[in-house]
Amino acid sequence: MWGNKPSVLVGDFLFSRAFQLMVETDNLAVLDILAGASAIIAEGEVMQLKSSNNLSVTEEHYLNVVSAKTAALFAAAAQSGALLSDQGSEFVSGLRAYGENLGIAFQLVDDALDYSGRQALMGKTVGDDFREAKMTLPLILAHARAADSDRPFWKRVIETGNQTESDLDRAITLIEQTGAMQETMSRARAYADVAKAALKVMPESDIKRALADIADFCVERAY
Amino acid sequence: MWGNKPSVLVGDFLFSRAFQLMVETDNLAVLDILAGASAIIAEGEVMQLKSSNNLSVTEEHYLNVVSAKTAALFAAAAQSGALLSDQGSEFVSGLRAYGENLGIAFQLVDDALDYSGRQALMGKTVGDDFREAKMTLPLILAHARAADSDRPFWKRVIETGNQTESDLDRAITLIEQTGAMQETMSRARAYADVAKAALKVMPESDIKRALADIADFCVERAY
Repeated sequence: MWGNKPSVLVGDFLFSRAFQLMVETDNLAVLDILAGASAIIAEGEVMQLKSSNNLSVTEEHYLNVVSAKTAALFAAAAQSGALLSDQGSEFVSGLRAYGENLGIAFQLVDDALDYSGRQALMGKTVGDDFREAKMTLPLILAHARAADSDRPFWKRVIETGNQTESDLDRAITLIEQTGAMQETMSRARAYADVAKAALKVMPESDIKRALADIADFCVERAY
Repeated sequence: MWGNKPSVLVGDFLFSRAFQLMVETDNLAVLDILAGASAIIAEGEVMQLKSSNNLSVTEEHYLNVVSAKTAALFAAAAQSGALLSDQGSEFVSGLRAYGENLGIAFQLVDDALDYSGRQALMGKTVGDDFREAKMTLPLILAHARAADSDRPFWKRVIETGNQTESDLDRAITLIEQTGAMQETMSRARAYADVAKAALKVMPESDIKRALADIADFCVERAY
């Protein structure tokens, strides 16, 4: 709407303002975590761009992207809070592990919801990743498990990006039928459980229960 | 060459890496200065965008843009070094004033050189600002002092941006004839002298002489 130059410059301005706010924490260790996380997040987004339109993207590559672009942010947030509460290194690394695993669970669910018929019923957008030919886990699994007769479909819609109106419905059907949706969700559940287990460094409290609830909600929002 | 998304993301990555390096200074006061400067620089660049193609831009607006986009960087650099050397607040504000005035002098000379016939003889690019219809001081002064018969020329090349091959030569001639070039350079000289005077907080030394030489060189590079 405003052209490239103002858009990039206003982005730079917001970036600088964010760092100014971070400096206000008055804590160099936190600044180090947050500056590091934002470099990793930018790298993760670049890695993700490279994987569009590419059916040979592996689960491992996908998880590396998710770790960088999403989990790094959740991990940095959880770690920073823990650090500021001054309760020792085991507490800090426990909370960091909580954030990291919560971030992966969140992203897996987010990627699953992009192919969810239920999400469509609730009036939310589906198919954004599909239209951009992003290689997310539901698609990676559905393609790996595809019958020979379905392979030309995936090749056309992802590699050539040549899509028609009805292709999203077919993609959703294939992702359901191959069990790719269920598998993505059960992996998300597993990461959420690891996140909850990492909270063992905290004594029982309302706060600990709230953090555990966030992990559960993150997966259950899909149902 | 690479499209918008990778370009913006790699910019974000470089920004984050820069902040990581700043955190390595291990000094919150310096981080505060640098984060503040980068917000002001981004604002200055946005202010400058708004002033293109606009003949009613004032000298005051121009100097505000220069203070934000260039002098803020020089001032932050000089102030940070002074702060790290731990010699008291008068020393720090003296060095900050040095950087600020040096930055303004530098930018005035840079804007003058963009219309310099001599620069063209040395094989460097001239006319970049002119082609982008940027309202820099040489142009603001030449327009303010323009004969009535030259006003339609400025209106066409700056406000409508409708330029032909020979317009840059005519612009250079008008900027010389009205004394706008000489006035821009003598103001740059004045800022450089203020920068040198601000060094009075330093004892005589090779370093002080080197800083004064930078201010002189900054202006003399134009001749």
